[in-house]
Amino acid sequence: MIKGVNFIGQTASKKNKETFQAFDPSANKPLHEGFHIATSDEVDEAVQKAEKAFPIYSRLPGSIKADFLEAIADEIMSLGDTLIKRASAESGLPNGRFEGERGRTVGQLRMFADLLREGSWVDARIDTAQPDREPIPKADIRNMLVALGPVAVFGASNFPLAFSTAGGDTASALAAGCPLVVKAHESHPGTNELVSRAILKAADSIDDIPDGVFSSLNGKADIGQQLVAHPSIKAVGFTGSLNAGRSIFNAAANRDEPIPVYAEMGSVNPVFLLDNKLKSSAEELALQYSQSVTLGKGQFCTKPGLLIAQKGDGLTTFTNALSDKLNDFQPSCMLNKGVASNYVKTREEFLDQPGVETIQPATNETELNKSAALATVDAATFLENKSLWEEVFGPFTLIVSCDDSAEMHQVATDLDGQLTLTFMGDDDDLTSHKDLIHQCQQKAGRLIFNGVPTGVEVCHSMQHGGPYPATTDSKFTSVGTGAIRRFVRPVAYQNFLTDLLPDELKPGNPLNILRLVDGEYKR
Amino acid sequence: MIKGVNFIGQTASKKNKETFQAFDPSANKPLHEGFHIATSDEVDEAVQKAEKAFPIYSRLPGSIKADFLEAIADEIMSLGDTLIKRASAESGLPNGRFEGERGRTVGQLRMFADLLREGSWVDARIDTAQPDREPIPKADIRNMLVALGPVAVFGASNFPLAFSTAGGDTASALAAGCPLVVKAHESHPGTNELVSRAILKAADSIDDIPDGVFSSLNGKADIGQQLVAHPSIKAVGFTGSLNAGRSIFNAAANRDEPIPVYAEMGSVNPVFLLDNKLKSSAEELALQYSQSVTLGKGQFCTKPGLLIAQKGDGLTTFTNALSDKLNDFQPSCMLNKGVASNYVKTREEFLDQPGVETIQPATNETELNKSAALATVDAATFLENKSLWEEVFGPFTLIVSCDDSAEMHQVATDLDGQLTLTFMGDDDDLTSHKDLIHQCQQKAGRLIFNGVPTGVEVCHSMQHGGPYPATTDSKFTSVGTGAIRRFVRPVAYQNFLTDLLPDELKPGNPLNILRLVDGEYKR
Repeated sequence: MIKGVNFIGQTASKKNKETFQAFDPSANKPLHEGFHIATSDEVDEAVQKAEKAFPIYSRLPGSIKADFLEAIADEIMSLGDTLIKRASAESGLPNGRFEGERGRTVGQLRMFADLLREGSWVDARIDTAQPDREPIPKADIRNMLVALGPVAVFGASNFPLAFSTAGGDTASALAAGCPLVVKAHESHPGTNELVSRAILKAADSIDDIPDGVFSSLNGKADIGQQLVAHPSIKAVGFTGSLNAGRSIFNAAANRDEPIPVYAEMGSVNPVFLLDNKLKSSAEELALQYSQSVTLGKGQFCTKPGLLIAQKGDGLTTFTNALSDKLNDFQPSCMLNKGVASNYVKTREEFLDQPGVETIQPATNETELNKSAALATVDAATFLENKSLWEEVFGPFTLIVSCDDSAEMHQVATDLDGQLTLTFMGDDDDLTSHKDLIHQCQQKAGRLIFNGVPTGVEVCHSMQHGGPYPATTDSKFTSVGTGAIRRFVRPVAYQNFLTDLLPDELKPGNPLNILRLVDGEYKR
Repeated sequence: MIKGVNFIGQTASKKNKETFQAFDPSANKPLHEGFHIATSDEVDEAVQKAEKAFPIYSRLPGSIKADFLEAIADEIMSLGDTLIKRASAESGLPNGRFEGERGRTVGQLRMFADLLREGSWVDARIDTAQPDREPIPKADIRNMLVALGPVAVFGASNFPLAFSTAGGDTASALAAGCPLVVKAHESHPGTNELVSRAILKAADSIDDIPDGVFSSLNGKADIGQQLVAHPSIKAVGFTGSLNAGRSIFNAAANRDEPIPVYAEMGSVNPVFLLDNKLKSSAEELALQYSQSVTLGKGQFCTKPGLLIAQKGDGLTTFTNALSDKLNDFQPSCMLNKGVASNYVKTREEFLDQPGVETIQPATNETELNKSAALATVDAATFLENKSLWEEVFGPFTLIVSCDDSAEMHQVATDLDGQLTLTFMGDDDDLTSHKDLIHQCQQKAGRLIFNGVPTGVEVCHSMQHGGPYPATTDSKFTSVGTGAIRRFVRPVAYQNFLTDLLPDELKPGNPLNILRLVDGEYKR
């Protein structure tokens, strides 16, 4: 089934003789298929097809787009174990993980289908005419969100399904009415091809879906840069490293026509362990956090990478218990060679910093199998050394020990932007740290009490995003129904003929959606 | 009352000995006061005060922010004729215009006050906990929009009140909970000082408003660049030229932490004059459009600068009638010397292009008083010469004559992004040009039937924005209640203590706002 091709809409294409192979990190050997790297022509053809599909696809009723999203979900499920096994082979992650991730992926597609069928997401606003108003008449004005245009989506290394070819960016862009071109992640091109075929099969099964609504391309960073620079691409979805994300952001900002880039670039997800809780539940917290730090082998953008607490017996007990738990974590296969070597490199740079004490060293590592590690540093040293504020992508976390509450507050004040900030405390802890929590609101997209940052619920209220460098645009989320807003813009229709208005804005509200009419929310 | 100072919050400041004078274009002479140019230290002090005010101001209840906005409106009205006369003296625009513009300005402030009191704008989303869910429990997650941080606002030359110191950017930023620093426009520093005093008096009259919520600075473009580069500034509102707007956008994108720039940079606001309408109502259309082209002496960002029609008797009649009407327009005082000379320069460059025929030349102009002008070009020539697609800021418009409907469609396809696109037609015209209208939706923020693009209603449904180069971010509007969304971002609160949740998200809905609870909109 896997042929190593690019998809220019429904057309399989392999103009370039140059191929690359996927790699099975568990087996530490390449997989046999060769994947044809997209040529510049193929990039251009894919975008042109998307542009041609745009006016047709974007104007389809929400119910047809919903059918399409549900058909994609069904086709993905139809791939069965073939998909699970391939994703596992290309990532070193177990089959069970992909049963869960597949559930998340099809769940997202179906959630957006539901959102489209309900319809109110378009934020319809209507101000009716007042022809007799003095000194000048008031026109009839009607406003709703419409699709931006063709979107480029980048697959993420750490979620071959849920943040890749048919992941949240794809689901929300298609729901918004935007055709898209996926730049497949080089680590899992086979998974991409299987999922691409599922999407294209779904598109083919629904009469109204135009060819070009979906394309996927293989290649390295230069293919991505070409995509982002293409004048017909109007927005970009990306999940990955700060360096890669910023480079895409810069390319988009430097275009003749700048375009939005939604780059989710991870964070260190600081956790404040407050005093009473630490004293009463140090062992329990250690267990909970050892699991969160090593979930997915620490390869989650919400991995807690910084644990902040006041010095004392509670912290000592917690530190020892966490060290023990992390010591129990067996060296495990990382996503790919690059992630594995980068984990060791950034971790060792951390451990070499002055004042950093290794509590639990990494042991028994091989080229691809890595172990967990734990270090500690006092807050004064941490605050002075910005290299300790960076993300280590892998099962490593750093404990920052503070002399007092003021120092803890200083850490919160100085922190970079984050996806999440967490507070572990009893009610007294939390209430007495109200100022700290308020301060932290400025730094993160999601604030958590007594939980772990890993585990990003897919729902209306989720915010997966946050101030730079967590993302390039803190005003949007890449998870949950809010993600659709990244790919739309408002358009106002003034004094329009009813027949030419979109159904969402017609008198009589034929779609029965929630609308703001002359200042009142109504159906 | 005008002392030529900067305001660092409530503190009048004039560290720099260097001053500049405002200029009265009607009298063609400088006004007497000297305005102290802000120093780098003053820029930094203003932003630092804004940053300090941010956590206090942003957390105030909506009702107190609403009181503040209303107090600003009242203080502006209290300035009485002093403000009207000063704005007139600094802009060459008549007193009557400023009575209207003042009404718009205080109307905007009161509209945002109403929005805050109603409260639902925060887009509250709540997903309640499901502790028994399998395989993992669902947390309680609550999400709402919160303020971004300190904002830089640039005054616009052409709206000394409604798009300047207390204009739409200021009203929406303050409503969102963002302190701000205004870079006053050099053309109307006296108007800025009067309005700044009104804002500061309003701030002083309300106990809870912290010092630093508002500052204003005098100076040239370098002061603006310093503001935009300051790490504590988190967003920028700007209305002005493409060059200035792009330069600010670039500076913001190149920061260590990129920030959003909402630059509204104008457009040519193309108007399609459709056949039946042109045949039946050429004279009426000419009158209507002569008024729109010369409104505010053509110094509106929504001035119709491009009139597109098929060749024929209707167009000939329209062209002659429009020429007559524009000939009746007396040479009038422009906003300032720069605008006046730039109008002539860009207009003459247009008229010198091959294939452009001058229909109504400018006559009897002086250094500051300029007349209206009209030219025509055939669509084939227009399509090949991109210099004809640019905005001429002033009372000039260009008629593009098309051989047929296909050529008209080609113009629509090739157009740059616009604030508005207008269609003048009877019902048959409009219905038979459905494809043209659909095509145009991709190019503009607002589509108008049988009206003029000038006159931007302040309401919920207004979209004053559009694809680049009309603005740097088509996803937002700078006019109407939607403008508040430029200065906020969503934050999710997971498993929060009720006492620490914002009121908007508390159980029981104490503010009685519309919220999306477990997928249902409820109060």
